[in-house]
Amino acid sequence: MSSYFQSSREEILRDYFELLRFPSIGADKLHLRDCVNCAMWLKKWLEKIGFSASLEMSEKHLGSPPVLFASRKGDEASPTILFYGHYDVQPPEPLEKWETEPFEPVLKDNERVYARGSQDDKGQFFSFLCGMKALIEQGAKLPNIKILLEGQEESGSQMLSDIAESLSEKIKADVLLVCDTSAASELRPAIIAGLRGVAHLTIKLDAASGDLHSGEHGGLAPNPALGIAQIVSTLHNCDGSIAVRGFCDGILMPSEKEIRLANESTVSEDEYEKTFGVKPCGGEEGLSMSERNAFRPTIEVNGIHSGYGGPGSKTVIPSSAFAKISMRLVPGQSPRRVVELVKKHLENNVPRGMKLTIDEVNEGSPGFRLPIESPIFRLAQFILEEIDDRGPVFMWEGASIPVVSDLVRASGAAPLLVGFGQAEDAIHAPNESYSLKQFSLTMKWAEKIISAIAE
Amino acid sequence: MSSYFQSSREEILRDYFELLRFPSIGADKLHLRDCVNCAMWLKKWLEKIGFSASLEMSEKHLGSPPVLFASRKGDEASPTILFYGHYDVQPPEPLEKWETEPFEPVLKDNERVYARGSQDDKGQFFSFLCGMKALIEQGAKLPNIKILLEGQEESGSQMLSDIAESLSEKIKADVLLVCDTSAASELRPAIIAGLRGVAHLTIKLDAASGDLHSGEHGGLAPNPALGIAQIVSTLHNCDGSIAVRGFCDGILMPSEKEIRLANESTVSEDEYEKTFGVKPCGGEEGLSMSERNAFRPTIEVNGIHSGYGGPGSKTVIPSSAFAKISMRLVPGQSPRRVVELVKKHLENNVPRGMKLTIDEVNEGSPGFRLPIESPIFRLAQFILEEIDDRGPVFMWEGASIPVVSDLVRASGAAPLLVGFGQAEDAIHAPNESYSLKQFSLTMKWAEKIISAIAE
Repeated sequence: MSSYFQSSREEILRDYFELLRFPSIGADKLHLRDCVNCAMWLKKWLEKIGFSASLEMSEKHLGSPPVLFASRKGDEASPTILFYGHYDVQPPEPLEKWETEPFEPVLKDNERVYARGSQDDKGQFFSFLCGMKALIEQGAKLPNIKILLEGQEESGSQMLSDIAESLSEKIKADVLLVCDTSAASELRPAIIAGLRGVAHLTIKLDAASGDLHSGEHGGLAPNPALGIAQIVSTLHNCDGSIAVRGFCDGILMPSEKEIRLANESTVSEDEYEKTFGVKPCGGEEGLSMSERNAFRPTIEVNGIHSGYGGPGSKTVIPSSAFAKISMRLVPGQSPRRVVELVKKHLENNVPRGMKLTIDEVNEGSPGFRLPIESPIFRLAQFILEEIDDRGPVFMWEGASIPVVSDLVRASGAAPLLVGFGQAEDAIHAPNESYSLKQFSLTMKWAEKIISAIAE
Repeated sequence: MSSYFQSSREEILRDYFELLRFPSIGADKLHLRDCVNCAMWLKKWLEKIGFSASLEMSEKHLGSPPVLFASRKGDEASPTILFYGHYDVQPPEPLEKWETEPFEPVLKDNERVYARGSQDDKGQFFSFLCGMKALIEQGAKLPNIKILLEGQEESGSQMLSDIAESLSEKIKADVLLVCDTSAASELRPAIIAGLRGVAHLTIKLDAASGDLHSGEHGGLAPNPALGIAQIVSTLHNCDGSIAVRGFCDGILMPSEKEIRLANESTVSEDEYEKTFGVKPCGGEEGLSMSERNAFRPTIEVNGIHSGYGGPGSKTVIPSSAFAKISMRLVPGQSPRRVVELVKKHLENNVPRGMKLTIDEVNEGSPGFRLPIESPIFRLAQFILEEIDDRGPVFMWEGASIPVVSDLVRASGAAPLLVGFGQAEDAIHAPNESYSLKQFSLTMKWAEKIISAIAE
């Protein structure tokens, strides 16, 4: 464990718990005030350790959670780090599956902290910042440090993506550090060599002006509960491949080395089934796990709702239905283009008698892959070998941090994504947690990589 | 209007409103107490006008709403009427669409009473009983009258169906009167010459042990939100016909006369669209409206639910999904057999990696059609011509009163279904209502048909 963590444990946990208590659900307008309060709290926390900080707003995004920007000058002629994290969290639903309150953190068995955001990303970025704070308090040699903490990552980083270009001068940096990803199994360190992009939208089908009796109207009224199933099921072929015409055009295939390294850092089918209670049989038939998860795009349904959902039966033909759809994208796919293709596909498949509305469209971000022989990767590899004898693996993650591409472009920095998430953390799910071991490991990583960059 | 209605309006509305205040949602165990209270209230009401009444329970159905049986001796050697109705109501959801409280009846503009059950079936059966009460108070010549009021019609009449045979002696009758159906448009009286049967079930798909991140697991974890759409969309062919093998085998085709009469009592496409805000383009392509609604079976999705349903997005792969499915059946189809076929079809179409559970199976009842030249139909026709110059139409309804077949078999009675529902009543939907005009008309019908049978 980080020695600093041991000596300051009480203070660190107190701050961490305070941070977790903000129900900063960035996607939900009703929680805007909580997001602002959370950003204000972080601003004060950073100011106390010598940062100048400001909340960045944008006229176009009034009503969006603010972006917190902070900076601190380092030693003369030292390089500049840009650190990115997000203080927004996923909605906690389904609430009934939580064993403790999602926004009242609980440390169980002196091992793990349970709360929404305990890992993603409050836990990860805050443990990194605690490592940085330790360095500052030790009076170590430091680079210039810039910090961006946003409140919309879970819903597409719309504002930060839009304003990134205008912040270009402010956020110019040599290295972009992000701590929002996972380590390999058994907490073996991992350097993220690629991320998928993401885009999402909500579709709604409307038919009759109100719910109808399924006997009196069955055979007459079009049924959106059935229609939403029919339109959604046109998105894939029987073999699990994507049926939207043109969706996979132009995808950059991975190199043999990338496939080999990705296979090495992928869990086995058995281990996956043991951890998640299901065989990893999703996606396109005939491809390996890492190919399906890292190098191929997906279209997923994140929610589908229509009609009665209570006990027993209610023989109704609902008047409307909706589905929440998201896509994961890989290099070679333009988010704007694939969203257009999906919209066109849906419009071509509207069930008879129903009206389709496409809403909450977020074109998100493209996927990317990084050159695995770059200097910053070699430095990270060296440090992670110091921290863990096993050394790091390279991982191409199926997940997305939409804004990373935009920040790379605007800051000119080389991205370095190292995080210590584990499957058991259950991010985006009930009973999310983060262990003190992960917390302390992240602090250690922060201390070492920041110092190494300062040299 | 019935003269008795005018003279006793205040008392009738008071009783009617009391009846509507019971939230007797028969399908919901949490409302069992309300159902029992409602049945007790009806028992007392009938006892006050000379009936012997009892609540029928069944060991197999402990915890089900009771069946109320009541009887009253008529004049010597007179025939026996069995009157059937149901005091249970549909759940009131979605609550936010009600303009007034569903269980606090409101009379608007001195014209219509708004409440769940104001029509279906509390309003219809209670106005019939008020007509009968008027006859009793007038000292008119009366037949023997038996009354069955049950509390599970909206969820399949399981208990009454099961005990009907054992009540056979008790409920033996010449005519089975039911007031739970609709009149033709503009309140033109209608005799129901056929009803569809109904059966329903709930299907559930399970995959991972918890909700998963759609980026980290997309391409690996099977997705039940997508799977439920896929399995449900296998139930129909592209032309809207049912794709379940054998489902339509053996269906009795209607005669030319039945088709002609049914077409006469069916609204036009334009009128339908004007009333319900949607073209009547559901069901199988190439068939007329009345064929699709009355003479062909359906499979409908009454509800489909999985994953996130709030604002914005939550990029999750849900761990489970469910759909509520109901079927309307026509003569020639055995409910048990088609339910087996649907179950088999679903089992053959389980999406990869998911576990299917079929639950809340209710085999309901078969559909039936009655001979339109029967003596009781001729009597009804004569009376309805007295009440309304236009005379009655014959209707084959798409809806079901599941228990009617069982009661016909057990009582040996000839069924006569005449009701005065109208589309604007919005049964099963928010803001259900019933007009005082309908109430009074039903009273008049009750007075005349009961008297005619007594002669």
